[in-house]
Amino acid sequence: MKQRQKSSPWVPLGIGDDAALLRCPADHDVAITTDLLLDGVHFLTAEHSLEQIARKSLAANVSDIAAMAAEPVAAFLSLGLPRSWSAEQAGRLFDQLAAAAEEFHVVIAGGDTTSWVGPLSINVALYGFLPTAKAICRDGAKIDDIVCVSGPLGGSILGRQFTFTPRVREARWLAENCRPHAMMDISDGLVSDLGHILHASGFGAELHAVDIPISEDAQRMNDDRSPLEHALSDGEDFELLWTMSPAAFESLKGMPDCPVDVFPVGRITEQKGCRILDEQGQPISCNTQGYVHHLKSD
Amino acid sequence: MKQRQKSSPWVPLGIGDDAALLRCPADHDVAITTDLLLDGVHFLTAEHSLEQIARKSLAANVSDIAAMAAEPVAAFLSLGLPRSWSAEQAGRLFDQLAAAAEEFHVVIAGGDTTSWVGPLSINVALYGFLPTAKAICRDGAKIDDIVCVSGPLGGSILGRQFTFTPRVREARWLAENCRPHAMMDISDGLVSDLGHILHASGFGAELHAVDIPISEDAQRMNDDRSPLEHALSDGEDFELLWTMSPAAFESLKGMPDCPVDVFPVGRITEQKGCRILDEQGQPISCNTQGYVHHLKSD
Repeated sequence: MKQRQKSSPWVPLGIGDDAALLRCPADHDVAITTDLLLDGVHFLTAEHSLEQIARKSLAANVSDIAAMAAEPVAAFLSLGLPRSWSAEQAGRLFDQLAAAAEEFHVVIAGGDTTSWVGPLSINVALYGFLPTAKAICRDGAKIDDIVCVSGPLGGSILGRQFTFTPRVREARWLAENCRPHAMMDISDGLVSDLGHILHASGFGAELHAVDIPISEDAQRMNDDRSPLEHALSDGEDFELLWTMSPAAFESLKGMPDCPVDVFPVGRITEQKGCRILDEQGQPISCNTQGYVHHLKSD
Repeated sequence: MKQRQKSSPWVPLGIGDDAALLRCPADHDVAITTDLLLDGVHFLTAEHSLEQIARKSLAANVSDIAAMAAEPVAAFLSLGLPRSWSAEQAGRLFDQLAAAAEEFHVVIAGGDTTSWVGPLSINVALYGFLPTAKAICRDGAKIDDIVCVSGPLGGSILGRQFTFTPRVREARWLAENCRPHAMMDISDGLVSDLGHILHASGFGAELHAVDIPISEDAQRMNDDRSPLEHALSDGEDFELLWTMSPAAFESLKGMPDCPVDVFPVGRITEQKGCRILDEQGQPISCNTQGYVHHLKSD
Protein backbone atom coordinates (compact mmCIF):
# COMPACT_ATOMS: atom_id res chain seq x y z
CA MET A 1 0.00 0.00 0.00
CA LYS A 2 2.88 2.32 0.86
CA GLN A 3 4.21 2.49 -2.68
CA ARG A 4 0.81 3.39 -4.08
CA GLN A 5 0.35 6.52 -2.02
CA LYS A 6 1.06 10.02 -3.19
CA SER A 7 2.77 12.36 -0.79
CA SER A 8 1.14 15.45 0.65
CA PRO A 9 2.69 18.49 2.32
CA TRP A 10 0.16 17.93 5.11
CA VAL A 11 1.23 14.34 5.73
CA PRO A 12 4.98 14.56 6.44
CA LEU A 13 5.01 10.91 7.56
CA GLY A 14 2.63 8.30 6.17
CA ILE A 15 2.46 4.52 6.28
CA GLY A 16 5.30 2.61 7.91
CA ASP A 17 6.03 3.94 11.39
CA ASP A 18 4.30 3.61 14.78
CA ALA A 19 2.09 6.53 13.86
CA ALA A 20 1.66 8.91 10.93
CA LEU A 21 2.13 12.64 11.18
CA LEU A 22 -0.32 15.25 10.04
CA ARG A 23 0.75 18.89 9.78
CA CYS A 24 -2.22 21.21 10.21
CA PRO A 25 -2.03 24.42 8.17
CA ALA A 26 -1.87 27.60 10.27
CA ASP A 27 -5.26 28.86 11.44
CA HIS A 28 -6.96 25.59 10.63
CA ASP A 29 -8.64 22.89 12.68
CA VAL A 30 -8.56 19.16 12.02
CA ALA A 31 -11.93 17.49 11.45
CA ILE A 32 -11.96 13.80 12.28
CA THR A 33 -14.56 11.15 11.68
CA THR A 34 -14.57 7.39 11.88
CA ASP A 35 -16.97 4.77 10.52
CA LEU A 36 -16.87 1.02 10.91
CA LEU A 37 -18.41 -0.70 7.89
CA LEU A 38 -19.40 -4.31 8.45
CA ASP A 39 -20.33 -7.21 6.22
CA GLY A 40 -24.05 -7.91 6.58
CA VAL A 41 -24.78 -4.39 7.81
CA HIS A 42 -23.30 -1.83 5.43
CA PHE A 43 -22.48 -4.15 2.56
CA LEU A 44 -22.75 -7.81 1.60
CA THR A 45 -19.56 -9.46 0.41
CA ALA A 46 -21.74 -12.10 -1.26
CA GLU A 47 -23.54 -9.49 -3.37
CA HIS A 48 -21.44 -6.37 -3.71
CA SER A 49 -18.16 -5.96 -5.53
CA LEU A 50 -14.95 -5.06 -3.73
CA GLU A 51 -15.04 -1.84 -5.73
CA GLN A 52 -18.47 -0.98 -4.30
CA ILE A 53 -17.44 -1.92 -0.77
CA ALA A 54 -14.17 -0.01 -0.90
CA ARG A 55 -15.67 3.09 -2.46
CA LYS A 56 -18.57 3.22 -0.01
CA SER A 57 -16.21 2.84 2.95
CA LEU A 58 -14.27 5.91 1.92
CA ALA A 59 -17.20 7.90 0.54
CA ALA A 60 -19.34 7.62 3.70
CA ASN A 61 -16.50 9.12 5.71
CA VAL A 62 -15.73 11.78 3.11
CA SER A 63 -19.38 12.79 3.33
CA ASP A 64 -19.06 13.30 7.11
CA ILE A 65 -15.99 15.50 6.67
CA ALA A 66 -17.76 17.44 3.92
CA ALA A 67 -20.73 18.01 6.23
CA MET A 68 -18.49 20.01 8.58
CA ALA A 69 -17.43 22.15 5.57
CA ALA A 70 -13.95 20.65 5.78
CA GLU A 71 -11.61 19.40 3.06
CA PRO A 72 -10.68 15.68 3.32
CA VAL A 73 -6.93 15.08 3.52
CA ALA A 74 -5.89 11.68 4.89
CA ALA A 75 -7.42 8.31 5.68
CA PHE A 76 -6.45 5.46 7.98
CA LEU A 77 -7.82 2.05 7.07
CA SER A 78 -8.21 -0.85 9.49
CA LEU A 79 -9.16 -4.10 7.84
CA GLY A 80 -10.34 -7.31 9.48
CA LEU A 81 -10.05 -9.82 6.64
CA PRO A 82 -11.83 -13.20 6.72
CA ARG A 83 -9.27 -15.97 7.18
CA SER A 84 -10.66 -17.67 4.09
CA TRP A 85 -9.54 -14.80 1.87
CA SER A 86 -6.66 -15.30 -0.53
CA ALA A 87 -3.81 -12.82 -0.79
CA GLU A 88 -5.17 -12.01 -4.25
CA GLN A 89 -8.56 -11.03 -2.78
CA ALA A 90 -6.89 -8.87 -0.15
CA GLY A 91 -4.77 -7.24 -2.85
CA ARG A 92 -7.84 -6.42 -4.90
CA LEU A 93 -9.48 -4.80 -1.87
CA PHE A 94 -6.33 -2.71 -1.28
CA ASP A 95 -6.36 -1.70 -4.96
CA GLN A 96 -9.98 -0.60 -4.77
CA LEU A 97 -9.40 1.33 -1.55
CA ALA A 98 -6.43 3.07 -3.17
CA ALA A 99 -8.57 3.91 -6.20
CA ALA A 100 -11.31 5.34 -3.98
CA ALA A 101 -8.78 7.39 -2.03
CA GLU A 102 -7.50 8.80 -5.31
CA GLU A 103 -11.03 9.62 -6.44
CA PHE A 104 -11.60 11.59 -3.22
CA HIS A 105 -8.13 13.18 -3.18
CA VAL A 106 -7.15 11.71 0.17
CA VAL A 107 -3.83 10.12 1.11
CA ILE A 108 -3.97 6.72 2.78
CA ALA A 109 -1.62 7.55 5.62
CA GLY A 110 -1.80 4.42 7.75
CA GLY A 111 -3.79 1.46 8.85
CA ASP A 112 -3.85 -2.00 10.26
CA THR A 113 -4.67 -5.30 8.57
CA THR A 114 -5.51 -8.49 10.44
CA SER A 115 -6.80 -11.85 9.30
CA TRP A 116 -9.47 -13.31 11.59
CA VAL A 117 -12.39 -15.73 11.93
CA GLY A 118 -15.02 -12.99 11.56
CA PRO A 119 -16.56 -11.44 8.43
CA LEU A 120 -14.99 -8.51 6.57
CA SER A 121 -14.83 -5.37 8.68
CA ILE A 122 -13.45 -2.07 7.45
CA ASN A 123 -12.83 0.91 9.69
CA VAL A 124 -11.98 4.22 8.13
CA ALA A 125 -10.72 7.15 10.17
CA LEU A 126 -10.67 10.24 8.01
CA TYR A 127 -9.10 13.66 8.57
CA GLY A 128 -9.78 16.95 6.96
CA PHE A 129 -8.83 20.58 7.46
CA LEU A 130 -10.97 23.67 7.76
CA PRO A 131 -10.34 27.26 8.85
CA THR A 132 -10.28 27.56 12.65
CA ALA A 133 -13.72 27.90 14.23
CA LYS A 134 -15.43 27.77 10.81
CA ALA A 135 -16.95 24.30 11.12
CA ILE A 136 -20.68 24.14 10.49
CA CYS A 137 -22.20 22.05 13.25
CA ARG A 138 -25.62 20.67 14.04
CA ASP A 139 -26.48 23.05 16.85
CA GLY A 140 -26.67 26.37 15.06
CA ALA A 141 -30.17 26.33 13.52
CA LYS A 142 -32.28 29.43 14.26
CA ILE A 143 -36.02 30.03 14.24
CA ASP A 144 -37.38 30.73 10.72
CA ASP A 145 -34.26 29.29 9.06
CA ILE A 146 -34.99 27.65 5.73
CA VAL A 147 -34.27 23.91 5.78
CA CYS A 148 -32.57 22.79 2.56
CA VAL A 149 -31.25 19.59 1.02
CA SER A 150 -28.84 19.21 -1.89
CA GLY A 151 -30.56 16.51 -3.95
CA PRO A 152 -33.40 14.06 -4.45
CA LEU A 153 -33.92 11.61 -1.60
CA GLY A 154 -35.01 8.03 -1.00
CA GLY A 155 -34.38 4.60 -2.41
CA SER A 156 -30.59 4.68 -2.12
CA ILE A 157 -30.70 0.94 -1.50
CA LEU A 158 -31.31 0.46 -5.23
CA GLY A 159 -27.70 1.46 -5.84
CA ARG A 160 -27.05 5.08 -4.94
CA GLN A 161 -25.73 4.00 -1.52
CA PHE A 162 -22.63 2.89 -3.47
CA THR A 163 -22.46 5.43 -6.27
CA PHE A 164 -23.21 8.70 -4.46
CA THR A 165 -20.81 11.62 -4.67
CA PRO A 166 -19.92 13.13 -1.27
CA ARG A 167 -20.80 16.82 -1.36
CA VAL A 168 -17.36 18.20 -0.51
CA ARG A 169 -17.28 20.99 -3.07
CA GLU A 170 -20.90 21.97 -2.41
CA ALA A 171 -20.39 22.17 1.36
CA ARG A 172 -17.24 24.28 1.02
CA TRP A 173 -19.04 26.61 -1.37
CA LEU A 174 -22.03 27.01 0.95
CA ALA A 175 -19.74 27.66 3.92
CA GLU A 176 -17.83 30.33 2.05
CA ASN A 177 -20.72 32.02 0.28
CA CYS A 178 -23.77 31.88 2.49
CA ARG A 179 -22.75 30.44 5.82
CA PRO A 180 -25.39 27.85 6.78
CA HIS A 181 -26.35 27.97 10.46
CA ALA A 182 -26.37 24.17 10.79
CA MET A 183 -25.36 21.38 8.44
CA MET A 184 -24.99 17.62 8.29
CA ASP A 185 -25.16 14.82 5.76
CA ILE A 186 -28.19 12.57 5.41
CA SER A 187 -27.16 9.07 6.41
CA ASP A 188 -30.13 7.91 8.50
CA GLY A 189 -32.92 9.63 6.58
CA LEU A 190 -34.17 13.22 6.26
CA VAL A 191 -36.57 13.24 9.22
CA SER A 192 -34.23 11.29 11.48
CA ASP A 193 -31.20 13.43 10.65
CA LEU A 194 -33.13 16.69 10.82
CA GLY A 195 -34.08 15.46 14.30
CA HIS A 196 -30.38 15.61 15.23
CA ILE A 197 -30.19 19.26 14.15
CA LEU A 198 -33.45 20.08 15.99
CA HIS A 199 -32.31 18.32 19.15
CA ALA A 200 -28.90 20.00 19.10
CA SER A 201 -30.35 23.42 18.29
CA GLY A 202 -33.34 23.22 20.65
CA PHE A 203 -36.04 23.90 18.05
CA GLY A 204 -38.58 22.13 15.85
CA ALA A 205 -39.36 22.20 12.14
CA GLU A 206 -42.11 21.91 9.58
CA LEU A 207 -41.43 20.15 6.30
CA HIS A 208 -43.56 20.85 3.23
CA ALA A 209 -44.41 17.54 1.59
CA VAL A 210 -44.78 19.09 -1.84
CA ASP A 211 -41.23 20.50 -1.69
CA ILE A 212 -39.44 17.27 -0.75
CA PRO A 213 -37.34 16.21 -3.77
CA ILE A 214 -38.20 12.57 -4.35
CA SER A 215 -35.62 10.53 -6.22
CA GLU A 216 -36.46 8.28 -9.13
CA ASP A 217 -35.25 5.40 -6.95
CA ALA A 218 -37.86 6.25 -4.33
CA GLN A 219 -40.53 6.18 -7.06
CA ARG A 220 -39.33 2.74 -8.12
CA MET A 221 -39.29 1.15 -4.67
CA ASN A 222 -42.75 -0.29 -5.18
CA ASP A 223 -43.41 -1.54 -1.65
CA ASP A 224 -45.84 -0.67 1.13
CA ARG A 225 -44.37 2.79 1.66
CA SER A 226 -45.06 5.79 -0.55
CA PRO A 227 -42.27 7.51 -2.52
CA LEU A 228 -42.65 10.47 -0.12
CA GLU A 229 -42.15 8.18 2.86
CA HIS A 230 -39.02 6.77 1.26
CA ALA A 231 -37.70 10.28 0.63
CA LEU A 232 -38.43 11.28 4.22
CA SER A 233 -36.94 8.26 5.91
CA ASP A 234 -34.58 6.18 3.77
CA GLY A 235 -30.96 6.62 4.68
CA GLU A 236 -27.62 6.71 2.91
CA ASP A 237 -28.64 9.51 0.57
CA PHE A 238 -25.47 11.32 1.61
CA GLU A 239 -26.93 14.63 0.45
CA LEU A 240 -26.33 17.75 2.51
CA LEU A 241 -29.02 18.91 4.93
CA TRP A 242 -28.63 22.47 6.14
CA THR A 243 -30.48 25.47 7.52
CA MET A 244 -29.89 29.10 6.62
CA SER A 245 -31.53 32.45 7.27
CA PRO A 246 -34.31 33.52 4.85
CA ALA A 247 -32.08 36.45 3.77
CA ALA A 248 -29.18 34.13 2.99
CA PHE A 249 -31.55 31.87 1.09
CA GLU A 250 -32.81 34.80 -0.99
CA SER A 251 -29.29 35.95 -1.82
CA LEU A 252 -28.33 32.38 -2.73
CA LYS A 253 -31.03 32.32 -5.38
CA GLY A 254 -29.35 35.24 -7.13
CA MET A 255 -25.88 33.70 -7.28
CA PRO A 256 -25.18 32.54 -10.82
CA ASP A 257 -22.23 30.25 -10.05
CA CYS A 258 -23.82 28.27 -7.24
CA PRO A 259 -22.64 24.68 -7.70
CA VAL A 260 -25.24 23.33 -5.29
CA ASP A 261 -28.68 22.00 -6.14
CA VAL A 262 -30.73 23.77 -3.47
CA PHE A 263 -34.07 22.29 -2.47
CA PRO A 264 -35.83 24.28 0.27
CA VAL A 265 -37.97 21.71 2.10
CA GLY A 266 -39.17 23.45 5.25
CA ARG A 267 -38.62 25.88 8.06
CA ILE A 268 -37.24 25.86 11.61
CA THR A 269 -39.94 26.60 14.21
CA GLU A 270 -40.01 27.46 17.86
CA GLN A 271 -42.49 24.61 18.32
CA LYS A 272 -40.55 21.42 18.99
CA GLY A 273 -40.89 18.28 16.93
CA CYS A 274 -40.95 17.77 13.19
CA ARG A 275 -44.25 18.12 11.32
CA ILE A 276 -44.92 17.17 7.72
CA LEU A 277 -47.42 19.58 6.16
CA ASP A 278 -49.56 19.28 3.03
CA GLU A 279 -50.19 22.11 0.56
CA GLN A 280 -52.89 23.52 2.81
CA GLY A 281 -50.49 23.59 5.74
CA GLN A 282 -52.23 20.68 7.42
CA PRO A 283 -50.14 18.02 9.18
CA ILE A 284 -50.09 14.71 7.39
CA SER A 285 -49.26 11.38 8.88
CA CYS A 286 -46.21 9.61 7.47
CA ASN A 287 -44.23 6.56 8.45
CA THR A 288 -40.86 8.21 8.96
CA GLN A 289 -39.04 5.57 10.93
CA GLY A 290 -35.31 6.13 10.50
CA TYR A 291 -33.32 3.96 8.20
CA VAL A 292 -31.89 0.74 9.57
CA HIS A 293 -28.50 -0.14 8.08
CA HIS A 294 -29.39 -3.78 7.66
CA LEU A 295 -29.20 -5.10 4.18
CA LYS A 296 -30.83 -8.39 5.01
CA SER A 297 -33.28 -9.46 7.65
CA ASP A 298 -31.33 -12.04 9.60
CA MET B 1 -20.64 8.12 26.23
CA LYS B 2 -20.92 11.86 25.53
CA GLN B 3 -21.77 12.77 29.11
CA ARG B 4 -18.83 10.83 30.49
CA GLN B 5 -16.20 12.75 28.57
CA LYS B 6 -14.17 15.63 29.92
CA SER B 7 -13.57 18.57 27.67
CA SER B 8 -10.17 19.57 26.39
CA PRO B 9 -8.99 22.87 24.89
CA TRP B 10 -7.58 20.79 22.02
CA VAL B 11 -10.92 19.15 21.29
CA PRO B 12 -13.32 22.06 20.64
CA LEU B 13 -15.95 19.63 19.34
CA GLY B 14 -16.26 16.04 20.54
CA ILE B 15 -18.90 13.35 20.26
CA GLY B 16 -22.21 14.19 18.58
CA ASP B 17 -21.67 15.81 15.20
CA ASP B 18 -20.66 14.49 11.77
CA ALA B 19 -17.04 14.83 12.77
CA ALA B 20 -15.06 15.99 15.79
CA LEU B 21 -12.66 18.91 15.74
CA LEU B 22 -9.10 18.85 16.95
CA ARG B 23 -7.20 22.10 17.42
CA CYS B 24 -3.49 21.54 17.03
CA PRO B 25 -1.32 23.79 19.24
CA ALA B 26 0.94 26.17 17.30
CA ASP B 27 4.21 24.62 16.13
CA HIS B 28 2.97 21.11 16.73
CA ASP B 29 2.21 18.14 14.51
CA VAL B 30 -0.58 15.63 15.00
CA ALA B 31 0.50 12.00 15.41
CA ILE B 32 -2.15 9.50 14.38
CA THR B 33 -2.31 5.75 14.81
CA THR B 34 -5.03 3.18 14.42
CA ASP B 35 -5.33 -0.42 15.59
CA LEU B 36 -8.13 -2.89 15.02
CA LEU B 37 -8.40 -5.35 17.92
CA LEU B 38 -10.33 -8.49 17.15
CA ASP B 39 -11.85 -11.28 19.21
CA GLY B 40 -9.79 -14.43 18.75
CA VAL B 41 -6.71 -12.50 17.69
CA HIS B 42 -5.91 -9.78 20.22
CA PHE B 43 -8.24 -10.93 22.99
CA LEU B 44 -10.72 -13.67 23.76
CA THR B 45 -14.15 -12.54 24.93
CA ALA B 46 -14.61 -16.01 26.41
CA GLU B 47 -11.53 -15.64 28.63
CA HIS B 48 -10.70 -11.99 29.17
CA SER B 49 -12.69 -9.41 31.05
CA LEU B 50 -14.19 -6.37 29.38
CA GLU B 51 -11.82 -4.33 31.54
CA GLN B 52 -8.83 -6.18 30.08
CA ILE B 53 -10.14 -5.89 26.53
CA ALA B 54 -10.98 -2.20 26.82
CA ARG B 55 -7.73 -1.25 28.50
CA LYS B 56 -5.60 -3.16 25.99
CA SER B 57 -7.43 -1.55 23.07
CA LEU B 58 -6.55 1.91 24.30
CA ALA B 59 -3.13 1.07 25.71
CA ALA B 60 -1.79 -0.52 22.51
CA ASN B 61 -2.61 2.66 20.62
CA VAL B 62 -1.27 4.92 23.37
CA SER B 63 1.99 2.97 23.12
CA ASP B 64 2.23 3.73 19.39
CA ILE B 65 1.71 7.44 20.00
CA ALA B 66 4.29 7.34 22.80
CA ALA B 67 6.79 5.68 20.48
CA MET B 68 6.76 8.80 18.27
CA ALA B 69 7.52 10.88 21.40
CA ALA B 70 4.05 12.40 21.19
CA GLU B 71 1.47 13.13 23.88
CA PRO B 72 -1.86 11.27 23.45
CA VAL B 73 -4.87 13.59 23.30
CA ALA B 74 -8.01 12.10 21.80
CA ALA B 75 -9.40 8.72 20.82
CA PHE B 76 -12.09 7.59 18.39
CA LEU B 77 -13.67 4.22 19.09
CA SER B 78 -15.45 2.07 16.53
CA LEU B 79 -17.21 -0.93 17.98
CA GLY B 80 -18.68 -3.91 16.17
CA LEU B 81 -20.79 -5.56 18.88
CA PRO B 82 -22.01 -9.17 18.59
CA ARG B 83 -25.77 -9.18 18.04
CA SER B 84 -26.14 -11.51 21.03
CA TRP B 85 -24.87 -8.83 23.40
CA SER B 86 -27.27 -7.20 25.83
CA ALA B 87 -27.43 -3.44 26.30
CA GLU B 88 -25.97 -4.04 29.74
CA GLN B 89 -22.89 -5.76 28.27
CA ALA B 90 -22.42 -2.95 25.78
CA GLY B 91 -22.76 -0.43 28.61
CA ARG B 92 -20.09 -2.19 30.63
CA LEU B 93 -17.71 -2.12 27.65
CA PHE B 94 -18.34 1.63 27.23
CA ASP B 95 -17.66 2.12 30.94
CA GLN B 96 -14.38 0.26 30.74
CA LEU B 97 -13.32 2.15 27.63
CA ALA B 98 -14.10 5.42 29.39
CA ALA B 99 -12.09 4.29 32.42
CA ALA B 100 -9.13 3.38 30.23
CA ALA B 101 -9.33 6.72 28.43
CA GLU B 102 -9.26 8.45 31.79
CA GLU B 103 -6.24 6.39 32.90
CA PHE B 104 -4.35 7.49 29.78
CA HIS B 105 -5.58 11.09 29.88
CA VAL B 106 -7.24 10.98 26.49
CA VAL B 107 -10.65 12.34 25.54
CA ILE B 108 -12.99 10.00 23.70
CA ALA B 109 -13.93 12.42 20.94
CA GLY B 110 -16.02 10.25 18.67
CA GLY B 111 -16.80 6.83 17.35
CA ASP B 112 -19.25 4.49 15.79
CA THR B 113 -21.14 1.54 17.29
CA THR B 114 -22.84 -1.15 15.25
CA SER B 115 -24.42 -4.46 16.18
CA TRP B 116 -23.61 -7.29 13.79
CA VAL B 117 -23.36 -11.04 13.26
CA GLY B 118 -19.57 -11.10 13.72
CA PRO B 119 -17.46 -11.32 16.89
CA LEU B 120 -16.45 -8.25 18.92
CA SER B 121 -14.23 -5.89 16.96
CA ILE B 122 -12.79 -2.68 18.38
CA ASN B 123 -11.02 -0.08 16.31
CA VAL B 124 -9.21 2.72 18.07
CA ALA B 125 -7.91 5.75 16.19
CA LEU B 126 -5.72 7.78 18.52
CA TYR B 127 -4.31 11.30 18.15
CA GLY B 128 -1.45 12.96 19.90
CA PHE B 129 0.53 16.16 19.62
CA LEU B 130 4.26 16.74 19.44
CA PRO B 131 6.46 19.70 18.54
CA THR B 132 6.73 20.13 14.75
CA ALA B 133 9.39 17.94 13.14
CA LYS B 134 10.37 16.43 16.51
CA ALA B 135 8.89 12.97 15.97
CA ILE B 136 11.31 10.12 16.53
CA CYS B 137 10.90 7.73 13.64
CA ARG B 138 12.26 4.32 12.73
CA ASP B 139 14.64 5.45 10.01
CA GLY B 140 17.16 7.49 11.99
CA ALA B 141 19.50 4.84 13.45
CA LYS B 142 23.22 5.47 12.83
CA ILE B 143 26.23 3.15 12.82
CA ASP B 144 27.59 2.48 16.34
CA ASP B 145 24.34 3.68 17.98
CA ILE B 146 23.57 1.88 21.22
CA VAL B 147 20.35 -0.16 21.00
CA CYS B 148 18.28 0.16 24.18
CA VAL B 149 15.03 -1.14 25.59
CA SER B 150 13.01 0.21 28.50
CA GLY B 151 12.19 -2.97 30.40
CA PRO B 152 12.35 -6.76 30.72
CA LEU B 153 10.99 -8.67 27.75
CA GLY B 154 9.15 -11.88 26.94
CA GLY B 155 6.20 -13.86 28.20
CA SER B 156 3.66 -11.03 27.97
CA ILE B 157 1.03 -13.63 27.15
CA LEU B 158 0.99 -14.57 30.85
CA GLY B 159 -0.78 -11.28 31.57
CA ARG B 160 1.45 -8.31 30.86
CA GLN B 161 -0.18 -7.92 27.43
CA PHE B 162 -3.15 -6.52 29.36
CA THR B 163 -1.47 -4.78 32.30
CA PHE B 164 1.46 -2.99 30.63
CA THR B 165 1.94 0.73 31.03
CA PRO B 166 2.50 2.58 27.74
CA ARG B 167 5.79 4.47 27.99
CA VAL B 168 4.45 7.95 27.28
CA ARG B 169 6.38 9.78 29.99
CA GLU B 170 9.58 7.86 29.30
CA ALA B 171 9.47 8.54 25.55
CA ARG B 172 8.83 12.25 26.06
CA TRP B 173 11.70 12.44 28.54
CA LEU B 174 14.10 10.65 26.18
CA ALA B 175 13.09 12.90 23.29
CA GLU B 176 13.68 16.03 25.33
CA ASN B 177 16.85 14.97 27.13
CA CYS B 178 18.88 12.77 24.85
CA ARG B 179 17.21 12.69 21.47
CA PRO B 180 17.16 9.05 20.35
CA HIS B 181 18.00 8.61 16.66
CA ALA B 182 15.27 6.00 16.14
CA MET B 183 12.47 4.73 18.36
CA MET B 184 9.46 2.42 18.31
CA ASP B 185 7.50 0.26 20.71
CA ILE B 186 7.92 -3.50 20.88
CA SER B 187 4.71 -5.09 19.74
CA ASP B 188 5.94 -7.95 17.52
CA GLY B 189 9.07 -8.91 19.49
CA LEU B 190 12.52 -7.37 19.97
CA VAL B 191 14.24 -8.97 16.97
CA SER B 192 11.29 -8.51 14.66
CA ASP B 193 10.75 -4.87 15.65
CA LEU B 194 14.44 -4.03 15.61
CA GLY B 195 14.29 -5.40 12.07
CA HIS B 196 11.89 -2.57 11.19
CA ILE B 197 14.39 0.02 12.46
CA LEU B 198 17.26 -1.68 10.61
CA HIS B 199 15.28 -1.91 7.40
CA ALA B 200 14.15 1.72 7.59
CA SER B 201 17.63 2.95 8.54
CA GLY B 202 19.59 0.76 6.12
CA PHE B 203 21.88 -0.86 8.70
CA GLY B 204 22.28 -4.04 10.79
CA ALA B 205 22.78 -4.73 14.48
CA GLU B 206 24.37 -7.04 16.97
CA LEU B 207 22.54 -7.91 20.15
CA HIS B 208 24.42 -9.13 23.22
CA ALA B 209 22.57 -12.10 24.69
CA VAL B 210 23.86 -11.46 28.18
CA ASP B 211 22.47 -7.92 28.17
CA ILE B 212 18.90 -8.77 27.11
CA PRO B 213 16.61 -8.11 30.09
CA ILE B 214 14.54 -11.26 30.47
CA SER B 215 11.23 -10.86 32.27
CA GLU B 216 10.10 -13.17 35.04
CA ASP B 217 7.25 -14.15 32.76
CA ALA B 218 9.72 -15.33 30.11
CA GLN B 219 11.44 -17.46 32.80
CA ARG B 220 8.09 -19.00 33.70
CA MET B 221 6.97 -19.89 30.18
CA ASN B 222 8.31 -23.41 30.55
CA ASP B 223 7.94 -24.58 26.96
CA ASP B 224 10.31 -25.64 24.18
CA ARG B 225 11.82 -22.16 23.86
CA SER B 226 14.42 -20.71 26.21
CA PRO B 227 13.69 -17.61 28.31
CA LEU B 228 16.17 -15.73 26.07
CA GLU B 229 14.25 -16.80 22.98
CA HIS B 230 11.03 -15.56 24.56
CA ALA B 231 12.66 -12.22 25.39
CA LEU B 232 13.96 -11.90 21.84
CA SER B 233 10.82 -12.83 20.03
CA ASP B 234 7.63 -12.63 22.11
CA GLY B 235 5.51 -9.64 21.28
CA GLU B 236 3.23 -7.23 23.10
CA ASP B 237 5.90 -6.16 25.57
CA PHE B 238 5.05 -2.56 24.67
CA GLU B 239 8.43 -1.41 25.96
CA LEU B 240 10.35 1.26 24.06
CA LEU B 241 13.09 0.20 21.68
CA TRP B 242 15.45 2.98 20.63
CA THR B 243 18.93 3.76 19.38
CA MET B 244 21.15 6.61 20.49
CA SER B 245 24.73 7.74 19.98
CA PRO B 246 27.37 6.34 22.40
CA ALA B 247 27.94 9.90 23.66
CA ALA B 248 24.23 10.39 24.39
CA PHE B 249 24.17 7.04 26.12
CA GLU B 250 27.12 8.01 28.35
CA SER B 251 25.52 11.32 29.29
CA LEU B 252 22.24 9.55 30.02
CA LYS B 253 23.98 7.40 32.64
CA GLY B 254 24.92 10.52 34.57
CA MET B 255 21.41 11.98 34.68
CA PRO B 256 19.99 11.57 38.18
CA ASP B 257 16.33 12.15 37.33
CA CYS B 258 16.04 9.78 34.39
CA PRO B 259 12.59 8.18 34.69
CA VAL B 260 13.48 5.48 32.17
CA ASP B 261 14.84 2.03 32.90
CA VAL B 262 17.59 1.88 30.29
CA PHE B 263 18.84 -1.52 29.16
CA PRO B 264 21.55 -1.32 26.48
CA VAL B 265 21.19 -4.53 24.48
CA GLY B 266 23.39 -4.08 21.44
CA ARG B 267 24.82 -1.88 18.74
CA ILE B 268 23.96 -0.71 15.21
CA THR B 269 26.43 -2.05 12.62
CA GLU B 270 27.18 -1.35 9.01
CA GLN B 271 26.84 -5.08 8.37
CA LYS B 272 23.20 -5.82 7.55
CA GLY B 273 21.08 -8.31 9.45
CA CYS B 274 20.65 -8.87 13.17
CA ARG B 275 23.12 -11.12 15.00
CA ILE B 276 22.80 -12.44 18.55
CA LEU B 277 26.24 -12.69 20.18
CA ASP B 278 27.40 -14.60 23.27
CA GLU B 279 29.83 -13.24 25.85
CA GLN B 280 32.80 -14.13 23.63
CA GLY B 281 31.26 -12.18 20.75
CA GLN B 282 30.36 -15.37 18.89
CA PRO B 283 27.05 -15.59 17.03
CA ILE B 284 24.54 -17.91 18.68
CA SER B 285 21.57 -19.50 17.03
CA CYS B 286 18.17 -18.56 18.41
CA ASN B 287 14.62 -19.16 17.27
CA THR B 288 13.54 -15.55 16.91
CA GLN B 289 10.42 -15.93 14.85
CA GLY B 290 8.27 -12.86 15.35
CA TYR B 291 5.25 -12.98 17.59
CA VAL B 292 1.97 -14.07 16.09
CA HIS B 293 -1.02 -12.26 17.58
CA HIS B 294 -3.08 -15.41 17.82
CA LEU B 295 -4.26 -16.35 21.23
CA LYS B 296 -5.54 -19.74 20.21
CA SER B 297 -4.50 -22.20 17.53
CA ASP B 298 -7.62 -22.46 15.42
